Amino acid sequence: MSHFLQLLLLLSLVILVAKLAGALAGRIGQPSVFGEILAGLILGPTVLDMLGWPVFATISGGGTGSEAGEALPLLPLVRDLADVGVVLLMFVAGLETDLVEMRRVGRVAFWSAFGGVVLPLVLGAATAVAFGFPLYWQGIFIGTILTATSVSISAQTLLEIGAFRSREGATILGAAVIDDVMGILVLSLVVALAKASSGAAGASGVDVRALLLVGGRIVLYFGAAWACGRLITPVLRWASSLGVSQAVLAGALVIAFLYAWAAEYVGEVAAITGAYVAGVLVAQTPYKKDVDAGIHPLTYSMFVPLFFISIGLQANGRELGAHAGFTVLLVLVAIVSKVVGSGVLARLAGFDARASLRVGVGMISRGEVGLIVAGYGLTNGIIPRDVFSASVLVVLVTTMVTPPLLRLVFPRRAGEHVQMEESIAHHP
Amino acid sequence: MSHFLQLLLLLSLVILVAKLAGALAGRIGQPSVFGEILAGLILGPTVLDMLGWPVFATISGGGTGSEAGEALPLLPLVRDLADVGVVLLMFVAGLETDLVEMRRVGRVAFWSAFGGVVLPLVLGAATAVAFGFPLYWQGIFIGTILTATSVSISAQTLLEIGAFRSREGATILGAAVIDDVMGILVLSLVVALAKASSGAAGASGVDVRALLLVGGRIVLYFGAAWACGRLITPVLRWASSLGVSQAVLAGALVIAFLYAWAAEYVGEVAAITGAYVAGVLVAQTPYKKDVDAGIHPLTYSMFVPLFFISIGLQANGRELGAHAGFTVLLVLVAIVSKVVGSGVLARLAGFDARASLRVGVGMISRGEVGLIVAGYGLTNGIIPRDVFSASVLVVLVTTMVTPPLLRLVFPRRAGEHVQMEESIAHHP
Repeated sequence: MSHFLQLLLLLSLVILVAKLAGALAGRIGQPSVFGEILAGLILGPTVLDMLGWPVFATISGGGTGSEAGEALPLLPLVRDLADVGVVLLMFVAGLETDLVEMRRVGRVAFWSAFGGVVLPLVLGAATAVAFGFPLYWQGIFIGTILTATSVSISAQTLLEIGAFRSREGATILGAAVIDDVMGILVLSLVVALAKASSGAAGASGVDVRALLLVGGRIVLYFGAAWACGRLITPVLRWASSLGVSQAVLAGALVIAFLYAWAAEYVGEVAAITGAYVAGVLVAQTPYKKDVDAGIHPLTYSMFVPLFFISIGLQANGRELGAHAGFTVLLVLVAIVSKVVGSGVLARLAGFDARASLRVGVGMISRGEVGLIVAGYGLTNGIIPRDVFSASVLVVLVTTMVTPPLLRLVFPRRAGEHVQMEESIAHHP
Repeated sequence: MSHFLQLLLLLSLVILVAKLAGALAGRIGQPSVFGEILAGLILGPTVLDMLGWPVFATISGGGTGSEAGEALPLLPLVRDLADVGVVLLMFVAGLETDLVEMRRVGRVAFWSAFGGVVLPLVLGAATAVAFGFPLYWQGIFIGTILTATSVSISAQTLLEIGAFRSREGATILGAAVIDDVMGILVLSLVVALAKASSGAAGASGVDVRALLLVGGRIVLYFGAAWACGRLITPVLRWASSLGVSQAVLAGALVIAFLYAWAAEYVGEVAAITGAYVAGVLVAQTPYKKDVDAGIHPLTYSMFVPLFFISIGLQANGRELGAHAGFTVLLVLVAIVSKVVGSGVLARLAGFDARASLRVGVGMISRGEVGLIVAGYGLTNGIIPRDVFSASVLVVLVTTMVTPPLLRLVFPRRAGEHVQMEESIAHHP
């Protein structure tokens, strides 16, 4: 089978399996992202090792021309497609971040998010150090993976137990959105600092001059990004006047890709941060709805399934045996640190003990952002593959325990079980 | 710069340049596809050799991990993305093929299309043979490249000269759609027969038994494709009940990719034929609008620009010097054979001489389908790169001469100059 036929078959299989697994997860009361990641693990080297199958493993003599020899291996190709997908996903996440709503949910949500970012970061790093990882930067990076709560999983679970419109529910959702932003900020700082230190003073120390340089570049990037943000509306308005097909969406894509590129090339922060920033800025323009409607369908039907399955293709559960202690502890730290960090700060911000516990439990689930951060670390050689695999397990387990734990701490209400996955999927 | 940053920069540049070039082409009275292909040629080895620039040519030591070494070269990656884009494009083309309309425009359109397929096929092959190419299968394949008229270019030009709703205009559009289908059928037969002959009796002869086998496989594929078509509505209805995001679109994508895969793997016809068939079948279901609305924006804003630019990246105008005679003659044959083939059969089918000339001239422009056929031939080693480059020139020149020639043969009418590139871009 020629390379391109393999690619077509692989795309069919990935989309089919991801969506079926997502639907199956829904049947057993889990969010669809849980099923998609688990399906990826099953297709990956952990169980079936799909890319090792004869049909995908070798490029047979299907092509006869001089071009045939240049055919690509499938795993890096899937990874490139998934990476483009992640940039699109983060752009959509930025598009759908409601800055006004974030201000509205206010004080308690902000502090819950803050506690739920700091404590997992600190305890995650401490756990990593306890197991022999250097604090700079592997330890801190592992902590960073634990920071961001999954909005989509929290929202879906709250809907399913009928607590979507409760005071605690609103706080959880607000905090989950805010801690995405915080998580991305932490990632940006860590990536920038890690680069500065590895470039100047080796892996274990920090050079003050390099730090200042990096700080300057970060400020330069975000300053320029914000300043250029004012140009987005006129640029897209101009694009819409060009009379070529899909000009506004094409303009928005160019902006997203350039912001992502510049984030890493100019600002020393992760490309996905740039895509997110571009999304937030485009969301302030009159073109938000058009761009979102244009980019959302193919992103969620093709690129996002590719991303989730590629997570499983890159992870290897078989490697976890040797690090079982670390993995189990990391999962426990991920759960406890979120409940305590978010819960205690919600209590300090004025919620009573029961409500604070609910908020803390509602923040447990991790999802896309954690996986994106872990994938970034793997690709850039910051974390080894076994830590990546452990991070995937953290996402799976925290996702799995959130619904039953939420049911435990929330009073049971009937009715309100609504199937509106589509509207939730709009959130990161 | 790391591999992924190169990819982000390349995607930004490709989309930006393609859309700007498309808009510029519109300003000088050319369809946007003309500008996009020309921009690709300029970016490609013919002029600027973009992928040879230091920023794209080498993977510097940006990645530090074990993954970095697996980074892909950019040209095959762009080609894979463009190939996925072509499958999506042909699927959209199928989606938007109106079988009812094709029946309605009737007899004259059908015979114009027929004449405009047969004569270019025969004369193109004869030209190739005269220049020393073997008839089987290079000659016939070169003829095949000349068969399909570009609907989008014809439609845009007719709009611009205010002849969109004339009797000749409707006939041209109908014939252009019909000859797309005929062109794809010819391509399917040629590919299948070429495979059969190269497998059995060498490149210059045809083995009757192998032919029968291929015929059987073609019948099997189209039979199975049609039979499975009845299942598409229930499958998509079932998908829409799964409660996962973008399930219908994901289902349609899986169908498109599987039909494309099976076309080549089972039916021995080109994968793009399968994608087109899937599109025609999905168009018969109640989900046509949803699928089209979901797949159209990102296809036309990202994948189609990638396809047009990749055409230019793969062609090399500098090679044409040595084959100037062949190239010039091929361009002339492309123009004359279409005018004569379509015009004479329109006359025989009942149009008067003036109307027949208008129909013939309106069918000159070639576009996406010709490029797709040529790209298929290049990738599968059926035609060498210089013939591919000559084919790109055929598309450019026929596109360029159609608008002024149409203005010459149509009576000048005022007004009606409408900017509706978007609605036309919906057609193949």
